[in-house]
Amino acid sequence: MTIFSKIISREITAHIIAEDNQFIAFLDIMPLAEGHTLVVPKKEIDRFFDLPDSELALINLFAKKIAMAIEKTFQCNRVGICVIGLEVPHAHMHLVPLNASNDLNFSNPKLKLTSAELAEIAKRIKAHL
Amino acid sequence: MTIFSKIISREITAHIIAEDNQFIAFLDIMPLAEGHTLVVPKKEIDRFFDLPDSELALINLFAKKIAMAIEKTFQCNRVGICVIGLEVPHAHMHLVPLNASNDLNFSNPKLKLTSAELAEIAKRIKAHL
Repeated sequence: MTIFSKIISREITAHIIAEDNQFIAFLDIMPLAEGHTLVVPKKEIDRFFDLPDSELALINLFAKKIAMAIEKTFQCNRVGICVIGLEVPHAHMHLVPLNASNDLNFSNPKLKLTSAELAEIAKRIKAHL
Repeated sequence: MTIFSKIISREITAHIIAEDNQFIAFLDIMPLAEGHTLVVPKKEIDRFFDLPDSELALINLFAKKIAMAIEKTFQCNRVGICVIGLEVPHAHMHLVPLNASNDLNFSNPKLKLTSAELAEIAKRIKAHL
């Protein structure tokens, strides 16, 4: 069971932004920027492109709602997308607010935010959903 | 008119992998890895999440076919996705073959490939479509 499945089943807590029957969105705890969110299919599938076609299509529509809320919450040019997936074997899409191309560089130092700070960020994003 | 629209209208040549009524895929001429491909909606829309919902859904299905062909052509763990879009105001999705997370880092030096080398790569990917 992946760490993301444990978040979905509430075995592990996370700062959840939204969920529906197929997807969940929660804050990345090692964020590149405030508002950095993961969108994850509830079905535990390793590789993004191995998702069933219906989920592959719908994940962008789910992600769009989250991205729009992130854009309303944080000053940014737009929200970028990244799917890498070599660390957790459970497909996930990073949504990261961007002002420069290099803001979506996973070699950049991650922000160190407390749980209280993450909770406040999640609350602010949710208010824009 | 963006450089991508000029590729779509054949004013500028590119190493095209595939196209349908809504999308086109061609090789990035500043690739992070051999096989690095751009998937672009034919409609000239700047921000990815401003695409109409139908295209936002379908772009992943179009991209999946290209990604599967790239994976069959080049030794890689999987094909990663990146949408940044601060340089060309025409939505586009990068598909990059990955073996390590840092392979999807746009600060990495780009490969210098000749047009003949790119043409050969496009031919090999197309053979797997």
